[in-house]
Parts: sequence; C-alpha cells; structure tokens
Amino acid sequence: MFGKKLKIGLFGFGVVGQGLYDVIHKSKGINAEIVKICVKHREKPRPIGMENFTFNKDELLEDKSIDVIVELIDHADEAFEIVSTAMKNGKAVVSANKKMIAEHLSELYQLQKQYDVPFLYEASVCGAIPIIRNLEEYYDNDLLDAVDAICNGTTNYILTKISEEALPYSEALRQAQILGFAESNPALDVQAFDPKYKLNILILHTFGLFVPHEKILNYGIEHLNECDATYAREKGLKIKLIAQTAKKGNNVIGFVMPKFVSKESLFFGVRNEFNAVQLSAAFSEKQFLLGKGAGSFPTASAVLSDISALSHHYRYEYKKVGQNGKLEFSNEEIIPVYMRYQNRDDVHQIKFESIDEEFQSPKHRYVTGTVKIKHLLDAGLNDRKDIFVCAL
Amino acid sequence: MFGKKLKIGLFGFGVVGQGLYDVIHKSKGINAEIVKICVKHREKPRPIGMENFTFNKDELLEDKSIDVIVELIDHADEAFEIVSTAMKNGKAVVSANKKMIAEHLSELYQLQKQYDVPFLYEASVCGAIPIIRNLEEYYDNDLLDAVDAICNGTTNYILTKISEEALPYSEALRQAQILGFAESNPALDVQAFDPKYKLNILILHTFGLFVPHEKILNYGIEHLNECDATYAREKGLKIKLIAQTAKKGNNVIGFVMPKFVSKESLFFGVRNEFNAVQLSAAFSEKQFLLGKGAGSFPTASAVLSDISALSHHYRYEYKKVGQNGKLEFSNEEIIPVYMRYQNRDDVHQIKFESIDEEFQSPKHRYVTGTVKIKHLLDAGLNDRKDIFVCAL
Repeated sequence: MFGKKLKIGLFGFGVVGQGLYDVIHKSKGINAEIVKICVKHREKPRPIGMENFTFNKDELLEDKSIDVIVELIDHADEAFEIVSTAMKNGKAVVSANKKMIAEHLSELYQLQKQYDVPFLYEASVCGAIPIIRNLEEYYDNDLLDAVDAICNGTTNYILTKISEEALPYSEALRQAQILGFAESNPALDVQAFDPKYKLNILILHTFGLFVPHEKILNYGIEHLNECDATYAREKGLKIKLIAQTAKKGNNVIGFVMPKFVSKESLFFGVRNEFNAVQLSAAFSEKQFLLGKGAGSFPTASAVLSDISALSHHYRYEYKKVGQNGKLEFSNEEIIPVYMRYQNRDDVHQIKFESIDEEFQSPKHRYVTGTVKIKHLLDAGLNDRKDIFVCAL
Repeated sequence: MFGKKLKIGLFGFGVVGQGLYDVIHKSKGINAEIVKICVKHREKPRPIGMENFTFNKDELLEDKSIDVIVELIDHADEAFEIVSTAMKNGKAVVSANKKMIAEHLSELYQLQKQYDVPFLYEASVCGAIPIIRNLEEYYDNDLLDAVDAICNGTTNYILTKISEEALPYSEALRQAQILGFAESNPALDVQAFDPKYKLNILILHTFGLFVPHEKILNYGIEHLNECDATYAREKGLKIKLIAQTAKKGNNVIGFVMPKFVSKESLFFGVRNEFNAVQLSAAFSEKQFLLGKGAGSFPTASAVLSDISALSHHYRYEYKKVGQNGKLEFSNEEIIPVYMRYQNRDDVHQIKFESIDEEFQSPKHRYVTGTVKIKHLLDAGLNDRKDIFVCAL
C-alpha cells in the first residue's frame, strides 16, 4: 500500500483542514497529495478552486486509489460514520476528533484489529505535543505511575487572565471567545468535557484501559469567582484545570477538575493557550512536555506527522492493553479538596469524608477536607452554581 | 533477527549499566535478557554473581547468539572500537556515549549503511528526554528553525546554586561533585565539551548536517564570577549554559555558551540537574521538553526504550541528511554578547563587530556588543581567566 506517493482524501476544510493543506504544500519531506476534499456546505466561499472539492463522501470512501482518509470535521457522529466506513474499506485513517474517539474508543480499537488498518490520532490530544506517540513507543516499558495534563487551551487562557490580570471569569471568557479559542459549544471547554475526552484517550495509552467516558469526572471552571481567585493569589497558588490519571495499587483513577498548583509545580508556569503534560515514571522520573495545544498549524502539524508515520508503516500497538491484567478504573479513591459555598447547607452538596478547615468571612466561606471521587461525580458539580470545588 | 527474545551483550557495569540491569528485570513489556556483561576491572566487587561477567570483549562481539550490543563504558576510543566491531559483525548497537558518537558521527552513519544494522543512542542526549526519537520521527516534516537545549546537568546545577543561593562558583562546583553529578573529567562539563558533543548529535538530527566537532564553539562557565551573577540577578535574569542551533537562511549556526535568559524564557525555570530542549518550528511552533538529563535510572530508561525499539525493527532514518542540500554550517553569524573584563586591554581579546554599552565601577567592568561566532571560537575563551563572555 505504501512506499509510493500517499493519496489522501480529506474530510473538512475548516481551520485545521486548511492548515493541513498549507503544511503539506510547504513541507519538504512528505510524499503525499490531497486528492479531494469532502465538505458539507455548498454555498461557503473556498480559498482554493472548487475542482478540489466534493459534497459526496462516497467519492472519497469508495475511491480505491485513496490510501488515507483524514477526518477533520466538527460533528462527532458523522465523523465516526466516516472513520468506521473508511476502516472497513481498508483505508488508513487519521483523525483529530477527540470527542468521537473518546466516545468510541473500544469500537475503534476493534475496527483496527478486524480490518487490519492503522488509525492514528495524535492531533486529538494536546495538539502539537507528541504525547500519544511517546506513550506508545517511548514509555512502553517504563513503569508509569501518573500522567497529568493541562489539555484545554481555552480554559487555561481564561484561568491565566483571571490569575494575572484579576479579570472576572465572564470577561476572561469573552476575551477567549474573541480570540477564537473556544469550541463551537463553549460548555465543552468550561465544563471540562473536552479535556475529559482527551484524558480518556490518555488513560488507554498510559494504562491500557478502556473507560466509558461517563465514568470519568469532568468538572470545569464556570463557577469560579473572585473569592477563589483571591484565595489562590494570596497563597501564591494558581488554579489550573488539570486532567489527571494515576495508578494507586491496582486501581487507576482519572478525573478532570480545577486544582491549586504551587510554584514548585511545572504547571504553574503554563500560561495562556499552552498545553502541557507531565509523566511520572519509575525510571525516567518526571518528564514534562509543553507546546501549543490548538490552532491551525500546530494541529495540522500533528496530523501531518501521523500521515508521515503511516508512510513508514507505523501504527499504534496498544501494548499496554491486556498487559496490566489486574488494573481497574476506580472512583473510590479519596482526594483533598477546597470548597467555597454561600450557605452552610451547601456544604452537604458533596459528601465529605473529613473536614479539615473551615473559614467564614462576610464575603468568603470555605471548607477544606477530603472526598471520594465518586461523590464528586454524583454531585453533578457543573450544575451547582453556588459552590466551587478545587483539588488541593 | 527479532520477534523472539532479544539477547543482549552489555559492555560496562557502572551506574547506568547497573540501572539497566535493574530496569530490565523490573519492566513488564520487554522481552530481552542480558546474556553476559563485559567489564574491565577484575578486582572490583560486583553486586551480582561473577558468572554474569567476562573480561574478554570477543566473548560478546563474536557470539552469534547475541543480537544487541549495549555499550555503556566511559572510555570513548574503546567504545568506538566495540561499537564499530559489533556493527561489522552484524549486531544492532545501543550506546549512551556522546563523546564517542560526536567524534565519529559520519563514520557511524556510514557503518549503519554499509552493514545494514541499526545504531540507537537516545540516552546520549538529555538522558530520559526522547529528543532524538522525536526529531527523527515526529518533527521529520515540520520546518524546524531552531533547537535550544540545557543538556548538561552538572553546570545547570552549579548555575542554579549560584543564582538562587548566591554561592561562589567554586563552592557550587564542589557541591555538584559531592552529589556525583560531575563527569570523570570535570572540564567536560565546565568547559562545555559534554553539551557540545550533544549539540553535534542534535544538529545532525535537526538539520541533517555532519559537523566536525572542532568547528563548534564550546565555552563553559569556569570564569563566571560574582559580578556576573549579581548583574544577572539585578536585571531579573538567569545565566544558563545553552546549546543552540538555528537556521539562518542557508546557514546553520551551532554553539554552546552561557546566555542570560529572562523570565519569559522557558529555560528560566529549569533548575538543578534538569535538562530541557526547546524546538521552534514553522507549524508546531514552540515545543518544550523537560526531564532528568542524567542519573542511573533515567539514562537506563532511555537505553531500554532503544532496546525495545530495536525489537520493533526501529532504526534512525536520517531523512534530513541530503534533504537540505543547500544548508551549510557556519560561524560567520553575528551575535550579541556581554563581556566582563579587568583591564581595558582585555576587551581586545575578542574581536567585536560593534560595542553598544560600556560600564565601569571599581568592582565591575563590562561591555556589551556584537561579535562573530568565529571570533569567539578563535579567542580560546575557556583559557582566558580574566574575562567572562555571555550571550545576550
């Protein structure tokens, strides 16, 4: 199938699709061409000639001369339809669609096995940071203990503005939207669905586990207010939205929620729309990767690296799947948290295991204590406007 | 050759060799065994049974059942002898010996071609940070503009102590030596030979150029004094020993020397014995990797990743060699520097293109200006005790 010039069928021509088009035309090392681009909207003006486009997906999916389908559309269900059909038709596939991938992780793994086709998706997690490739290949034999990530650029931008310029949440969000960082549905960012999808993919490549995404806590930053920001600032801390997974005995925990980080943490200095991943391993110890997590060119660059890898017969091997027989995903672990509330009764909105500190002033009331992850999940925190919970 | 259990012949059983022995025995995913270990000193007590050792290198090099030679000895010339013989005998080779590799880069490249054997050396640059692998595979199509690195843990430890605890250079060096960070020959670290060897390897994998190592400026931190440290502290800067390579038109520059870095630089926060690499590329923009650059387990972990990669038929492809036909290594570029001196005549020890600032007080005299890299190389700076030069 390879060794010759790669023929690509591209779905979607938004910012990333156009970025890929530019990057392929400017890069020297890649022997690939985009044969045709399938788009949805007939009336939209396009920056390149209409002869490059089709509106009929079968024109790409059924074309035997096309080796690789690159899927860069926004809609998760349509994306899965495209990707799974392409794989059934024996085509290699590259995608950046974290929502689609996280929702169909196990099916997509099976399709790769069943139809013996590679499916690569480096661009779906942390844009240009090559985290999946490194977890697959480079950290395949080391004993990984934990992976932590800032993997949503929008919320990191908002949190940076709140921390450094003391902007209120609403104003920081507005600025992020003007800059075009936000997802088409802002709840994906600020309620931490987007980083949860990415974490779900990371858990598979870190510990070899398929976790239904409903089991993973995603709690965002919508309810953070000035009291929380001031609390952090006075203590020399920053609030960051961290996706975490770690091994605790035979349990694997995984959740996304805001966390206070101190100056000692490498995440402290990760500003604006940057993403970062920290790996903790028995032998290589702490490793830290930082880069642009989104944007047209960084994401396109990750897609191009996947295309290039295909031309060298690369595929994910998922070596950790089955290797860690005893590991199980669990929300039973207890973690320390801060909770700011308005009325004393609100404290009971989550079930604390223990309460360590209580503070009350006319403006600011909070408790710190410990809680099981499952009780944070059960509490439906994204809908509880009167409290803000933050990992300590 | 592969697919079955990998049989390893190991040269050297110092900290890294012993680390590898431990890591192989603790890691789950690796299907490899160390058949025999060749060491030099007969009288040294060993932590494992003497039946594991030999003193005759041919016992490993001529053993047809051994697939992989892992070379982890200190002596560069002996290491080259071992590595080249192993390759001629058709064996895959893994090495961590940056001095040996940098001194024989072109020969080792030819040997790989001639005998069609893989030679991997991830552990030779920045320990556990997978920089060579990422340059080879992941950034193979992006247009790299520059790679900068803190790749010597000893000097970074010394510089951290000078900056944060205001220790004099000699005391900071002493502490690094007590902690066992320093190379067996301290000049390798403090005169920046060690990071120069690493830079030489990085230049090959970044721009595809073989550069004789004598052409690369290596200037260390031996002559840094309190005035320089105070100057940095007062301006909110830190002095870091940075290995830099960058493309300027058709020229590739590359040198190692101290540099003032500001809070905006990601290198500012790289403390103690940590290493870090920053990649600047057209599409993926800035990427930053940070991790332990030395130590028994981090280095062994990198060696193990190479061994594992061999079992998956991985080899460096050196795709950039020949791809960038017009690129040439050059020391003709002009860079801005700070120079502290004692007598006014000392200023003429390097040939400035221009002088921008002059400062004199009873304790501290310096100029800032611009200079061609080749004039810094010609000046033999490591031997000039009365001046200290630092890139701006």
